[in-house]
Formats: sequence, C-alpha cells, structure tokens
Amino acid sequence: MKKYINGEYFPGIQTIKYEGPDSDSPFAYRYYEADKVVGGKTMREHLRFAVAYWHSFCGTGADPFGPGTITHPWDAPADPIDAAKAKADAAFEFITKMGLDYFCFHDFDLVREADTLAGSEKLLQQVTEYIQQKQKDTGIKVLWGTANLFSHPRYMNGAATNPDFRIVARAGAQVKLALDTTMALGGENYVFWGGREGYMSLLNTDMKRELDHLGRFLGMARNYARGQGFKGNFFIEPKPMEPMKHQYDFDAATVVGFLEHYDLLDDFKLNLEVNHATLANHSMQHEMEVAAMHGLLGSIDANRGDYQNGWDTDQFPNNIYELTQLMLVFLQAGGLKGGGINFDAKLRRNSTDPEDLFHAHIGGVDIFARALITAARILESSEYISLRQERYRSFDSGDGKHFETGKLNLGSLYEIAAGNGEIPMTSGRQELFENLINRYI
Amino acid sequence: MKKYINGEYFPGIQTIKYEGPDSDSPFAYRYYEADKVVGGKTMREHLRFAVAYWHSFCGTGADPFGPGTITHPWDAPADPIDAAKAKADAAFEFITKMGLDYFCFHDFDLVREADTLAGSEKLLQQVTEYIQQKQKDTGIKVLWGTANLFSHPRYMNGAATNPDFRIVARAGAQVKLALDTTMALGGENYVFWGGREGYMSLLNTDMKRELDHLGRFLGMARNYARGQGFKGNFFIEPKPMEPMKHQYDFDAATVVGFLEHYDLLDDFKLNLEVNHATLANHSMQHEMEVAAMHGLLGSIDANRGDYQNGWDTDQFPNNIYELTQLMLVFLQAGGLKGGGINFDAKLRRNSTDPEDLFHAHIGGVDIFARALITAARILESSEYISLRQERYRSFDSGDGKHFETGKLNLGSLYEIAAGNGEIPMTSGRQELFENLINRYI
Amino acid sequence: MKKYINGEYFPGIQTIKYEGPDSDSPFAYRYYEADKVVGGKTMREHLRFAVAYWHSFCGTGADPFGPGTITHPWDAPADPIDAAKAKADAAFEFITKMGLDYFCFHDFDLVREADTLAGSEKLLQQVTEYIQQKQKDTGIKVLWGTANLFSHPRYMNGAATNPDFRIVARAGAQVKLALDTTMALGGENYVFWGGREGYMSLLNTDMKRELDHLGRFLGMARNYARGQGFKGNFFIEPKPMEPMKHQYDFDAATVVGFLEHYDLLDDFKLNLEVNHATLANHSMQHEMEVAAMHGLLGSIDANRGDYQNGWDTDQFPNNIYELTQLMLVFLQAGGLKGGGINFDAKLRRNSTDPEDLFHAHIGGVDIFARALITAARILESSEYISLRQERYRSFDSGDGKHFETGKLNLGSLYEIAAGNGEIPMTSGRQELFENLINRYI
Amino acid sequence: MKKYINGEYFPGIQTIKYEGPDSDSPFAYRYYEADKVVGGKTMREHLRFAVAYWHSFCGTGADPFGPGTITHPWDAPADPIDAAKAKADAAFEFITKMGLDYFCFHDFDLVREADTLAGSEKLLQQVTEYIQQKQKDTGIKVLWGTANLFSHPRYMNGAATNPDFRIVARAGAQVKLALDTTMALGGENYVFWGGREGYMSLLNTDMKRELDHLGRFLGMARNYARGQGFKGNFFIEPKPMEPMKHQYDFDAATVVGFLEHYDLLDDFKLNLEVNHATLANHSMQHEMEVAAMHGLLGSIDANRGDYQNGWDTDQFPNNIYELTQLMLVFLQAGGLKGGGINFDAKLRRNSTDPEDLFHAHIGGVDIFARALITAARILESSEYISLRQERYRSFDSGDGKHFETGKLNLGSLYEIAAGNGEIPMTSGRQELFENLINRYI
Repeated sequence: MKKYINGEYFPGIQTIKYEGPDSDSPFAYRYYEADKVVGGKTMREHLRFAVAYWHSFCGTGADPFGPGTITHPWDAPADPIDAAKAKADAAFEFITKMGLDYFCFHDFDLVREADTLAGSEKLLQQVTEYIQQKQKDTGIKVLWGTANLFSHPRYMNGAATNPDFRIVARAGAQVKLALDTTMALGGENYVFWGGREGYMSLLNTDMKRELDHLGRFLGMARNYARGQGFKGNFFIEPKPMEPMKHQYDFDAATVVGFLEHYDLLDDFKLNLEVNHATLANHSMQHEMEVAAMHGLLGSIDANRGDYQNGWDTDQFPNNIYELTQLMLVFLQAGGLKGGGINFDAKLRRNSTDPEDLFHAHIGGVDIFARALITAARILESSEYISLRQERYRSFDSGDGKHFETGKLNLGSLYEIAAGNGEIPMTSGRQELFENLINRYI
Repeated sequence: MKKYINGEYFPGIQTIKYEGPDSDSPFAYRYYEADKVVGGKTMREHLRFAVAYWHSFCGTGADPFGPGTITHPWDAPADPIDAAKAKADAAFEFITKMGLDYFCFHDFDLVREADTLAGSEKLLQQVTEYIQQKQKDTGIKVLWGTANLFSHPRYMNGAATNPDFRIVARAGAQVKLALDTTMALGGENYVFWGGREGYMSLLNTDMKRELDHLGRFLGMARNYARGQGFKGNFFIEPKPMEPMKHQYDFDAATVVGFLEHYDLLDDFKLNLEVNHATLANHSMQHEMEVAAMHGLLGSIDANRGDYQNGWDTDQFPNNIYELTQLMLVFLQAGGLKGGGINFDAKLRRNSTDPEDLFHAHIGGVDIFARALITAARILESSEYISLRQERYRSFDSGDGKHFETGKLNLGSLYEIAAGNGEIPMTSGRQELFENLINRYI
Repeated sequence: MKKYINGEYFPGIQTIKYEGPDSDSPFAYRYYEADKVVGGKTMREHLRFAVAYWHSFCGTGADPFGPGTITHPWDAPADPIDAAKAKADAAFEFITKMGLDYFCFHDFDLVREADTLAGSEKLLQQVTEYIQQKQKDTGIKVLWGTANLFSHPRYMNGAATNPDFRIVARAGAQVKLALDTTMALGGENYVFWGGREGYMSLLNTDMKRELDHLGRFLGMARNYARGQGFKGNFFIEPKPMEPMKHQYDFDAATVVGFLEHYDLLDDFKLNLEVNHATLANHSMQHEMEVAAMHGLLGSIDANRGDYQNGWDTDQFPNNIYELTQLMLVFLQAGGLKGGGINFDAKLRRNSTDPEDLFHAHIGGVDIFARALITAARILESSEYISLRQERYRSFDSGDGKHFETGKLNLGSLYEIAAGNGEIPMTSGRQELFENLINRYI
Repeated sequence: MKKYINGEYFPGIQTIKYEGPDSDSPFAYRYYEADKVVGGKTMREHLRFAVAYWHSFCGTGADPFGPGTITHPWDAPADPIDAAKAKADAAFEFITKMGLDYFCFHDFDLVREADTLAGSEKLLQQVTEYIQQKQKDTGIKVLWGTANLFSHPRYMNGAATNPDFRIVARAGAQVKLALDTTMALGGENYVFWGGREGYMSLLNTDMKRELDHLGRFLGMARNYARGQGFKGNFFIEPKPMEPMKHQYDFDAATVVGFLEHYDLLDDFKLNLEVNHATLANHSMQHEMEVAAMHGLLGSIDANRGDYQNGWDTDQFPNNIYELTQLMLVFLQAGGLKGGGINFDAKLRRNSTDPEDLFHAHIGGVDIFARALITAARILESSEYISLRQERYRSFDSGDGKHFETGKLNLGSLYEIAAGNGEIPMTSGRQELFENLINRYI
C-alpha cells in the first residue's frame, strides 16, 4: 500500500506549472497557460478542465480478467465517512496540484453506498458538508454530478428502463439524492449516462415501453431539480453499447431524436465522450458537429479509445492531429453550452505509481491546450473558413438562395437543370484541407 | 458471352415450384408456398418479394479490384432502347420463373442514361411503355422505384446535399423523372437511398447546411408526387457509410429524428437493409424494432453482410436463427407499412453461371419463408409473448401504471422506494428465450 | 443468497434426458443422445462436452461496470477448503445432472489462492484429494487444466512475458503446481491461454525479447510435465486482445508460426475459442481449418460473441447455420486431437436463477448435437464433398499434378499458358453450396 | 477532360522545394529536405519515397457505386503504346516535379493488357524501352514491380490459388513477364500482393491445397528470377481481406509463418501497408515490429485507412502522432531491408483537380519527413530507449540471464519463486512514454 506522509497523498510532487514547449520536465505544462488568452478567452475559460472522481480516486485497475492493482490509502478506513474524507483530501490535493478548477462525480464516488436508502442519504449529506468546506478553501468547483445507476446489482436489468417498477422507483430515489448532492455542492450541471438503459437481448425486451419510461423518468428528474431552483444544464451522455449489448443513448443523433420526441430539448444537452463516439463508429468531430448543429454541445468527456480494441478503454487523449480537428468544431460552435472538459480517462491497469496519475493528466491537459491554440490559429490566420464557405457560395444568392428559403419546387429544379446543360466538376480538395491542419501543428 | 435460345435468357430452367422440405432439387422451393396461409395471411401477402433490377440484371460482378466477370446478352445491343427491352425481357422471364410478384428499380437500371436530361427523359418514357405492356402480360408489379443519384460523376460531392446548387437542381430534375416513371409503372412506393448524401471529410463540410438542403429537397419531391396523385409511401433507406465516409441517413434512429426534425413523418417511412444495419453496428432486429416503434417499418432490403468484412457485401440471406428473430419483429409489428422484401443482394463475383441467380434467389426466398413459418409458430404456440409481457407486469397497475400515465413525480418515487426495502432480483432469462427460438426451428 | 436443501445445490432439477425434437420441455435434450452413433462414433465420443469450472461455479456476473449479481452458497464458508469442497459438490451435482463427462479448470477455480506459494500448493493438494474421490464416485473426468496467470495483480505486466524475471519465475512455479494438479486429477490435456502475454503499449515493450521468453517458458513447462510422465496434449488458446491491447497468441495462424519458430510443434496443439476467433476478425470455421490443416486441431472452447460488441461476451452458442459449418470442418478433420468441446461461456449478468445455468448448457449441448447430426448428413448424403473436389480436378493428373509435385517451373507455366488460349470461366457456385447447408438443417 | 499545354500535363506547377516549417505555400515542403542528414543518413536515403503508378496515373476515382470522375488526357490515345507513352510522360513529369526518386508499378499499369499473352508481352517490351530512356534522362528508378493478378476476370477464383490449373499457369506466365519487365527497368524489388489469393467461402474451398499451390508458385517465381540474375528482394504484402472474404496473407505474423513453412525465408520479406494493418486489427507499428523482429521489414506502402470505415480507403498519411511511433520502429529496426516508402494512396473520388495529386503527395512526404525527424530526436536526445531497456534489466544478469540462455528448468523457477516472497509491483508507465512522444512533436 502507498504511504502518505504529513497529510500528503502525493508527496514530492509540486504544483504543476507552465514552463513552455521547450521544457524537459515531465511535471510541467508545455502548452497549458491557464490565463493566456486564445481566441478571445483564457484557456481556463475555454477548457474548464475537470478531474473525474471515479477513475482517479475510486479506480483500482480492476478489469474483467483480474481485480485491482492499486490500493489507495484513502480506502483504508473502515468507517465510510472517514474513508470519504480521506478520499476528498486526496482529490483536492491532486486537483490543486494540477492547477485545475473542477471535478465531476457519481454519488457513490463520494462515499460508499449504505445498505439502505436512508443510510445512503445520511452519508451523502455528511460528506457533502465536508466537501463544501474544502471547496471554500480551494475554490474548486463541481462541473457536474451524476448518479451511479449501473453498478449495483439491483440495476442489472436497467434503472429507469427496468421492467420492474420497484427498481425504477429506487432509481428515481437515488437520482433525487444525487441531484440534492449536486445542488448542495454548487454543481453547474447534471449528467445522465444510461449505462444499463438498453438491452442484453431484444428477445425479452419491450423497447418502446422502456423508452417511454426513460422519457418519463428524465422529465421527472428535470421537474424536481427545477423545482429546487437548479439552473444548470442536464446532459445525456451517449454510448452505443457496453455494458449492455445495446444502449438506448447510442449516439448524438439518436439522443437528439429522443430529446425531441420526448420534448426534453429545453433542458437537456449532450455530454459527448470520445471513446463512446468511436465505439459508435463515429469520429468525435462528427458527434460534436451533430450536437453543435442543434445547439446541444454541452460538455465533453475527454479520453480516447484504442482503434484496435472494441471496448471502452478510456485512455488519456494524446493525438494532436485528431484533437486539433475536434477543437476546430469546438471553437466554431462557440465552445460548450455550460460544460467543460472532463477527463473521463483512467490509468492503464499496470500504471501503478502515484506519479502516473500526474503524467496522464498533464499529458491530457497539454494536448488539449495545444490543440486549442492550433485550432485558434487555423481559424484566425488561415484560409480554412473561406475555403469551406466558398464551396457553398451558390446558395448565398439567386436560385440557390431561393432553394434554401423554400421558394422553389421540384418543377423549378427541373427547369433550372434543363437550362443549365453540363455542369463543371468541382474538386472537394480534401487533401488540401488536411494539409492545412498539419501546417499549423 | 452467354447465349440465349428461342427468346429465352434462362433456357432449361423451369418455373420454380414448391416441393416441400424433403425435396432434393436445387431448383425447388422447400418452404415457400405462395398461397399458404401463415399467421392469418398468405405468404405472398406477408412477404411481397421483389427482385432488384440493378443487381440481377445490371450487375456484372465488378468490384474495386477488377471489372465485371459476367457479360449479359441483353447488354449487347448498341441502341439503348433495344438493350433496355432485351433486359426487360430477361427480367420478366426471371421473375416469372421465380414465381414472384414484384421488382424494384433505379431509373437508369431500366435504360442507359443519355447525355442530356431531355434525352434521358425520352428514353425513360420509351422503356416505360414497353415495361407497362410486360406488366399487363404477367401481372408483375413495381414495389418501388428510385433515382440513382450516386453513380454519375456529377454527384461525387452529393446530390441533394451537394455544395453546388446546380447539382442539387440536376438531382431534383432526375427525381422528377424517376417519380414520373415510378408512377407510370404503378410503383407502390418510392425510395431515397442517400448514397452520396454525407461527407468524405468534415473539414470541408457544412453539415447543418447540407442537412437543411436535404430536408428541403425531400419535401419538394413529396409535394410533387402528391400533386401528381401518388398515394404510395416514401421510404428513406438508412446506411451509415460507403461510398461516403459518413452518410447522413446513418441508421433508423437517425432517420426517425431527421424526419421528425424536418416534419416529414406523415409521408416518409423506412426501408431497412440488413447489411446496412450491421454496418451501423446494429442487428437488423434492432433497426426493425426502432422503425416499428414509431410506426415507420415500411419495407426491407433483404441481404446479409459478412461479419468479418467491413463493407456492404450484399449477400443473399441464409441464416435461419437470425432471420427467425427478424420475422418475430416483423409479425409483431403487423408486417410492413406498404413495402415488401426486396432482394437487394448480389451474386458473388465468381458466381458466373445463369443458374447461380436462381440458386441465390431460391435460397433467399426459402429462408425467409421458413423464418416466417417458424416465427408464426413461436408467436402462436409458445409462451414467448407471455414470458416477455410478464417482465413488465408491474407497470400494468398500481404505482407502475401511475408512473406510465404521468401521475407520479420524483418525490413519489423516493417515497415508494423508501417504503419498499430490499427488492428481489429478477432473472432476465435470456438463455431460455434463446433456446425457445431454436425449439421451433 | 440462494439456499440449498438436503445437500442439493440445484434442488428440483432432475437429470437432463433426451426427449427428441418434439419435446416442449426446457429441461430436456432434443438432439443430444449421448450414445447414439453419428458418423461412425457416438455423440459422446465425438463431442466430449466439458463444463467450465470458472464461469459456472466461480462467476458471479461482475462486469467492468458493476460487481457480481449472484452469490453462490458454496462461496459462503470462510475456510478455503470448506468452500472448495462445497463448490466441488455443486459442480459435480451440476455436471452429473447434465449427463456430461468432463470439466475444465484453472488452478484457483478449485480453491482460493493463498497468500504464499507454499500455502497455495497445500490448498491445491487438499482439494485435489477431495475431487479425486468425487471423480471416482461419478466417473467425471478432467478435459484439461490450466493456471490462471492473468488475474493476480502480480501479472499485470504479463506472466511468462513479464519484463521482471521474478514474475516469470513466479509464473513458472504456478504452472508447476497447476500441472501437478492436472496430472493428479487425470487431466487429459493442459492449456495455456496467454491472457496477459502481450502488450498494453508497444512504446514500452521489447516484443522480441518477450516472445523469446514465452517460447522458453513453454518449453520448460513441457519438459517438466513430460518428465513427470504426462502423456496429454498441451494446447495454446489464441486470443487477439483483451485484457491486453494486443496478445501474442493473436489467432491460429500466428500461434502455428510461433510453435514452428520455437520448435514446439511436437507437443503443442490449439484450443480454439469461437469468440476469440471472431474478435480476431475470423470465422471459427476459418480458425478450425487453419489448425486442422497443420494437424493441430486440438480442442474447442464453445461459445459465441456478439457481432455488434467488440469484446469477449462469451455467450452460449445458439446459431445452427454457423455451427453446422463448423461441424463440417470438425468432421472432415477427423474430430479433435485429444480435446473436446468445453463451454467457455457464461450466463448473462442478469440471468440470475439457478435454472439459467441449465438452460444455457442445455441449449449449448443441443445446438452442437444438432449441428453434428446435420453436418454428418451433409457429408454422407449430399453432393457436398464431390462438388468441392470437382473444383480442383485439374490438379489430380497431367500438368496440374506435375505442378503439385514440383516438376514444373515458371518457364513451363509460360509455355502451358501460351498454348492454352482463352480459358473458360468456372463459377464458384457459392450460393449453391450455401443452400445445400440449409437443405439439411 | 483536362488539357495539357506545351507537352506539360501539370502546367503551372513548379518543382516542389523545401521552404521550411514557416512556409505558407501549399506547394512547398516544410520538413522534407532530401539531402539533410537525420540519424546518420540523408532523408532521401532513409525514406526512398516512391510514387504508385496505379493510383496516380491509372486511377480515375471509380468506386463500387460509380464510375471514375477523372479523365486523364494520357488515356485518350486509342493506340495502347501511344497511351502508355503519354502516361509515362505524365508520370515522369510528376515524379520529377515532386523531387522524388522512385516509382512502383503493376505490369498493366504501364500499358493496357492485350487480348493474348503474346500480345501483352510485346506491348510490355515496347513500353519498357520507352521508360528505360526516360529513366536515363531523369534518374528515376523502380522501387518494385509486380503483376496484377486480381483485376482480370480470369482470376476471379484466385491466381496462384485458383482451383483450375490453367489459370495458375496463366498467372505464372504473367508473373514471368512482370519479372522480365521489372528486371529490364532495374527494379530493386518485386512484390506479391495476393489480391484474390484467398476465399469467398470456405464451403467450396480446399485451403490446404490452395496454400500448397501458393508456396509452390512463389518458389517457382523466385527460382526464375534468381536464374535471370535478379538480386533484389521478393516482398509479400499482407492484407486480411478485400476483395476476398479472407486473404491468405492476412497479416505479418501469418506471412512469416507461411514463409517459414514453405521455406521461402531466404528470399522473401514483407511489404507492409498501413491500411492493410488496420484492416487486420493491428496498428502499423505492430506489423512493422513483427516483421523487424524476424529481419523481414522490407518495404512500406504508405497510406492510411479511416478508423470508421471497414474497407481499404487508401488515403494519404497525415497523422503525426501515429507516424512518429511508426518511425520509432523504423529507425530502431535500422530502416528497411531493400525497400522504400511507396505512396499506395489515392485521391478521394471528389478530389478532381490536377493540383490535388500534388497536395496529397506533398502532405504525405512531409508528414513522413517530420515523423522521421521527430523519431530521430526521441532516440538521440530522450530517455526513451533507456526507460524501456530498464524494464527488462532483470534478464541482463543472474537467474534472469540463465533463464534466457536456457540454463533453468521449471523446477528452478519454482525454487526461485519460493525464495522470493512477495514481489513489488512495477508500473509500466505507459502514460509517461506517450507524453514523451508528444514532447518531441
């Protein structure tokens, strides 16, 4: 077990500082200068990085083929509140040393779940008070909270979509507590990730009934929180599968359709995760574009998958070419609607040193910062935007404009086409666009 | 080149007849008895099989690594109308010998495209007259028509979503002709497959603008056809990718959302293809269930992909376990909304004998017939439906019912849960459900 | 927790008997008649079904998103030997009730691992004696044993391929004990599945050095067991990935090459798993064919993956069309070299009733039996083999024969080709072959 | 059709020159300085870039859903030799303007295939003379030649693995001509890509017999060329599938095993393609490492796939993070064994301007150059190598060393482990390694 000395859980590691691109230190930022202005805002304002309580302070490296490899000193106390406080101490020490502003949590990341609902409620209230004090001391905020409706065996057939109403009610009770906790901690947003909302087999599933229940459930949660004065956003986090064979919040387009169908668009937006995007056979840029197009680009779970592995590997981001394209969408969308960039990423099972948690987050912060800087330069200095707009010029006036505004019909198109004769081919110039990205990296 | 004798293109092959499961003949149906009643309707009425004009009479076996392997005798004539008539003769001979009722076509499957729009229009009109006469002679009908908006180089950047308005107009003109042709041939439905409606790279694409154009375009087509008295359905056929990197009609859920967003739900339904489902990382059952849930299960393109190959292999269906599950959804949805089962499947490039076309279609027809019979028996004779309904019983009355009807709020759920104590686990019994399918195969 | 009454762990379930295809009972075999002769051998002799100790008696339904859903009564005792005996009682009761002959195990499936090597050795010896007695009482045998070299945190960087020699030595010690246990229980074979033998990142890996270590290690294990008089087969079980990003025993071809390179072909064969095949982008038939071609088709881990899920779902087999093709390879290869069909398959996490374990295994046994019967009929009664052989007839005599026997050179081929002129096309008739399979299902 | 003026096919485009990272010109190299020394050799010597004759001068943008979008002026002449000369003129103009040294070709890239073998042979000889003269004039060399044994319909069932011996002989004749042509043009290597060597269905395939034929065939080709004095390498180019359902040269490990089994290791090495690696579910680094480990890293086909598209998209490379890792393997392997970096990449179908061919190649050359520079700096300046070697230190002496040299047995490992007690965990530090790559980009 790792020891901690003089109340420090990460002794020997100082606050991570910006040292510039030439720094050789593995414990420094090379790109992330929190207060530097890029594209009209500070990096801090743009990126709003959050640390994920679950991976970083609850994760032990367990996988389907073996138990955890890491024993956290903060898990040692037998008393749940003692353990929760120790964990909070470690978390706030880490976030402070990283120089970041936010964290995200599931309800029972904060404290172990009790045997009864009432017991859990009490524990949550106790730990909330402790964390509130730490927030005051440090200025660290909650980007979003959520309820873990997937780990407990009771949810094995789903939570809001469980075929047994008693479980649905139990899930509702848990969401109430998670909302209460999030609000008490000043959480800016609240997330729903439907980890078990889906099916293992269509054979035993009434999909329509389950989706109706989900729509109903989300509306109830929204109503409750709004009634309590919560002004933040609700986010749905799409994922296509895993743990279920199929999950209802498959991808951004599916969730947008769901929100529209169940009339939830006024309060709900999307929290998009990179690895979930790629599991759904989409690029993250695509998912962000779909969300942005509907004004629903709420928040980002930053990580990466492994393109040769078909499950959620949740690795830390590191690919500058991909991230630059993602930040192009980000900046053109005007940033995120209320959310931030949460490192929903975990150390490899065999990264067992306390330093590894720093390396991982430093790498993730820095590659996002670099991508932001690069994307901002592309938008500000290059012909990128005009090259793209030029492709659509024919719709800016004349018949093209009339088409867009609904003044033409199919007969008009026929007449126009009949009059046009042969139309010259126009290259899409994809390779030129791709090179342009690399010019700025 | 294959020869044809005495006006027959498939000499030596007689009409395919039902001979029962024990038949050893490769040229007989073992399950498909067109007029046998299964689940309240004849197989013919349930299944409404269609032959795909393109694969079966236009396809030559070309692939990205080599040109075609088959030379059709009907393609020999230099004059487009002569060739079109010969092709129609072959097609009607084949469909008649197969004992099927329908075919589906793209505009320029029927006759070669001319150099000008006017020229193409004239050719389409001429071939339409010829085919109308053949329809009268044989009773063979058109399940659906469509326009090929993806093969011609002019559509390389999209048709309705092309950044150049002139191409959009040209696509509109072509759709007008395709609708005219479909209506003239008594087509029961009209399909849009957006083969190039998508993007090769997000970098050079304004996705929102393109989708707005697509919504506008579909509305225009609908308005035109309705104005001409067309009573049939419009179908969108989802496909996630290929030829484009991403296609806008990704999957059923995406298209349902699109139709709702652009207010097209009254006229449009879905034409689902098996191989497109699997390319989108869905089972076909899932796609059918999504469509059925919204009352949009319009038609089916029957084929299969190869689970180890990541492109549209369009093979003929043959897997009874999978098809039985698919027909369970089919029957429970009350069948298709206006469409039928179209063999959008092609011979392997190295299946070059004329007999192969028969083997392929006989296999496809028979496996669907067998799956229909099996699924009907499961629904009629087994405990399948009651086993599934039982899982949701708690919503049929009491608080569960109140939840469904919106009479509860999050606070009520909390109260109910607080009163419930520990809830017993209920097995999903998936393996039992799976065995049940095999009991009836 | 499930209760057990009068010493039974599965009370109320009788021995599963053959009742024929028309049986409606979910607790009967419809195809598996152990002593019925099919293709020259009894089903029992062909199939040699084994139950997997780990999934069936150790698995609890845990997944990466939640802990187990099942609490086994046999896990209750605090004393490891008491618990191990209870587990063995349950296992032997289940296997007996299923009417099967074999089981397979990892060392620490049998009994909990102790804190020290010596402690574990002692526990293994104690439980071995208990199981030996049960084997005598029931006639149940061990198909194969293996060592779990992937769960314990010490193996997080690999076992035989660990960069730290001390871990390699520790793994060697564990394999020695597992071999001792397997031999003591009369195990017919011994398996190596390299769950952590691979890499998480190539960046920190010396692949050649690790593979050399693996080759060395396997040779040592072979030498030890042979020295102890073990006459059984050693099997390598390929898997491409998971838990590692890449595993060295990627697929059958890779392992065949490895065995040849490290001179292990005389003692090692392959244990192929269906879900591992499909994760490697192969059909199981392909993997079996590769193994059979080299005389290395040793054993089968029977399960199935989900074609839409990219991880090892280890579901029970149920697809008759796929399994029939697999049994065609099986029968043509003359069956397995020393192994059997082990159900390396697990209940879904939400299949929590004791009956579910029976349903799952009954379904698996029966679908294999049905596939065996079907494949045997295809080989015995149909034109399948002659149709395939006919394709290669040109190599049975003349120049083709000379080509095979090495009597031609490239110049000869040039001369032959120059003399041949145009060569007629020969259809591969794939659709005919596919229909033929369905004719016999 | 594109026009060409004053004998130029790419008028208005000057020779591409190095202008440094700050250049804004899309027609300049920002990293590739051919004669700059990096890691002990000039970039030109390291990289040996080649242009692919087929994609760049024969490709027209056709795909499975539509014909070509580009009409090359050099294809206009009806006479095959006139067209071949025009194409050669265009190719040499392009390669010269790009400042590159090599090209690669298939036999019938150079000139259209004739109706007879003799006719084709004559055409190849004629165009060979013309190209020889152009080589003298420009210094441009042939990196490798190959025969197209996959496009012609005669090869639909395979070439060397065709079930019909006459086709095998015909393939042999074609390989003889392709070898003659390659040798006449001073080709430094010769490649086999087995595009149709595989199967569409295992049902109709005798895999062992086909592989034996392939082994025999390759030996014959080797013997012929060696007999003619050819000193170059033979390369096998792995690809897992497409056009066939399965291709025998699945991946590097499979081919290494095949070469060993058929005793071809002395003459054959591997030509690895990035997109083929990813289709086989491997990273390109992995494939290179496998080849390098056996001393078989012969040549590279540079391109990239699309991680969301399951077919061979053959796009130009552009991802600096991935390519840097690839060049780390490249440099540590001591570069390529005889080959070079061939841009087996094609323009998107909608990239129809002549300039696009330049953009694509400039981007590809530059990103490889940048990756080479970055990788060289990592190896020279960073702790990368020592960090990795440190992990394996325990094998450099003592018992670990004895293990490697075969002086231990399983009993020794048991003794060592028994004496070791608990072994401390050692982090794999993957995130640190990953950050280190980004530090140098």
